[in-house]
Amino acid sequence: MTTLVSQLLAGDRRALARLLSAIEDETPQAQEALAALYPHTGRAALIGVTGAPGTGKSSLVSALARFYRARGQTVGIIAVDPTSPFSGGAILGDRIRMVDLAGDPGIFIRSMATRGSLGGLARATADAIRALDAAGYDIILIETVGAGQSEVDIAYEAQTTLVVEAPGLGDDVQAIKAGILEIADILVVNKSDRPDALNTVRTLQAMLDLGAERPPRRWHHGQLLPAAARPAEARPDGWQTPIIQTIATDGTGVAELAAAIDRHRDYLQRSGQLADRERTRLEAELAHRLRDALLDRLLQQIDPGGLQALIARLVRRELDPASAVDYLLSNR
Amino acid sequence: MTTLVSQLLAGDRRALARLLSAIEDETPQAQEALAALYPHTGRAALIGVTGAPGTGKSSLVSALARFYRARGQTVGIIAVDPTSPFSGGAILGDRIRMVDLAGDPGIFIRSMATRGSLGGLARATADAIRALDAAGYDIILIETVGAGQSEVDIAYEAQTTLVVEAPGLGDDVQAIKAGILEIADILVVNKSDRPDALNTVRTLQAMLDLGAERPPRRWHHGQLLPAAARPAEARPDGWQTPIIQTIATDGTGVAELAAAIDRHRDYLQRSGQLADRERTRLEAELAHRLRDALLDRLLQQIDPGGLQALIARLVRRELDPASAVDYLLSNR
Repeated sequence: MTTLVSQLLAGDRRALARLLSAIEDETPQAQEALAALYPHTGRAALIGVTGAPGTGKSSLVSALARFYRARGQTVGIIAVDPTSPFSGGAILGDRIRMVDLAGDPGIFIRSMATRGSLGGLARATADAIRALDAAGYDIILIETVGAGQSEVDIAYEAQTTLVVEAPGLGDDVQAIKAGILEIADILVVNKSDRPDALNTVRTLQAMLDLGAERPPRRWHHGQLLPAAARPAEARPDGWQTPIIQTIATDGTGVAELAAAIDRHRDYLQRSGQLADRERTRLEAELAHRLRDALLDRLLQQIDPGGLQALIARLVRRELDPASAVDYLLSNR
Repeated sequence: MTTLVSQLLAGDRRALARLLSAIEDETPQAQEALAALYPHTGRAALIGVTGAPGTGKSSLVSALARFYRARGQTVGIIAVDPTSPFSGGAILGDRIRMVDLAGDPGIFIRSMATRGSLGGLARATADAIRALDAAGYDIILIETVGAGQSEVDIAYEAQTTLVVEAPGLGDDVQAIKAGILEIADILVVNKSDRPDALNTVRTLQAMLDLGAERPPRRWHHGQLLPAAARPAEARPDGWQTPIIQTIATDGTGVAELAAAIDRHRDYLQRSGQLADRERTRLEAELAHRLRDALLDRLLQQIDPGGLQALIARLVRRELDPASAVDYLLSNR
């Protein structure tokens, strides 16, 4: 066991920070440490928090963290920012809002932004969750910024997913909800002191009722095994998505939200879904990692000059991309 | 040449619609047709329109389409919805807003939603663009819903990317812009009849000025070739991102926006960036397709029972995902 691993397991925050940087940089040391830490994972409650811009997600994450700390639990927070693919920086506003948590040794906060591909971010987030889990944090809150597929991807890392809404965010928001609703285990109407909060609750309830006959939660990630090998997915969900009203900035509704999260975790454990979801998630992660590793290996076998010539043929419209793939795979 | 291909090249809308369905279903016929059509692509102007919910993207797309039609050009519209990974449905509101264009034979509108993975959607979108391009549409508008990595991905399919903002969309919006700004070739402040429109313009201009020293547009997609083989990316961008104010619902500013799009295309052609971007995009597409094809081939070689046992070991924390990948790749 390396020093880093033993320090991290002993609760050394600097060791954890070093590992998280190594994860982002994708070093061989990170992979070695994660392999050693893996048997120590699986204990934390993983809670995803997502929703459109302007809903107050960061304030809600801060409020939940304070609640858990008051209850004596330690909290890791991972703020994932898939909207900054270039600058590599995390969103400043979110950091500022979390400053009041920063002095507490029972809280560890880390921002992660896209470096390279979204696939890289999802993988780094999965690894960062494991690092915090092995380091002994009881609760891990995973906040994502935005409202697209990237949030859906990262939501799958969580065991309980909160989708945060707020009253009066513009006319497209209703439409967005249709897709994002389906990943919600708990719906939160934050900023419930706004006048049209009850309308938002009613609209969401109507959408939930409409979707009641929907098929059980499917997984869009790469699936390696045939459907028959995944019995859990044929099982009806059985969980009634609650709608919780909060005002994160003054703490209103946060205890109710935490209670709903506890109920959901209890439901996942009793129904066997906690294990089922974990299994499906690991299968998808394996698919993603395999895909990337296979490409890396292929590129080591291919002559770069030949590849460059092939891309030039694509540009000249002499060969289409799908045929180029067939060519590369049949000529190695 | 198949009947479908010849009908499509002759301008048959039903043939085009059939091919687009085949692309979404990923049939072998689609791949065959796309290979035959590929030499007929590369003529259309590809314009991406993205931005957060509530900015009025769809209205702007409709207004631009009307402008181009009045100028005598044909228009293909692809509305991509990465936020509906489960329902498979396109966003109804957007469709409704586009209804006034639907009777025009010079316009072809298609919605695409995620089926399976986001990677699948990006691939299908690239293929759909090629189908419309080969069918002879002069302008192809690619609209994406949401504000995450998926929009960034799909923006890369376009030659000119418009990022649409609107005044007063909530406090997180400023933060979101930081990432999305960097993909904008043209910034649009829509709904400019709102009282705080000028503030939005000033904020965006300040953010552009701040970002003036930023590195040139990088590509987050998979890159197959070493950086040295991609000389274009080291070249400074040289384009000053304009901010155009519009009121899409009454057409204000749409002619100015179209003029800015023309100027950008002219700039891309003169600077050689049109070809450079196309080349980088094709390289990235090849990387994505290779990755998926390699995984498919590996799965055909692996015994499903052995794979299931391996996943069970992951679940029991006996083996971590990265080590499982090493194991699968060294034992085949």
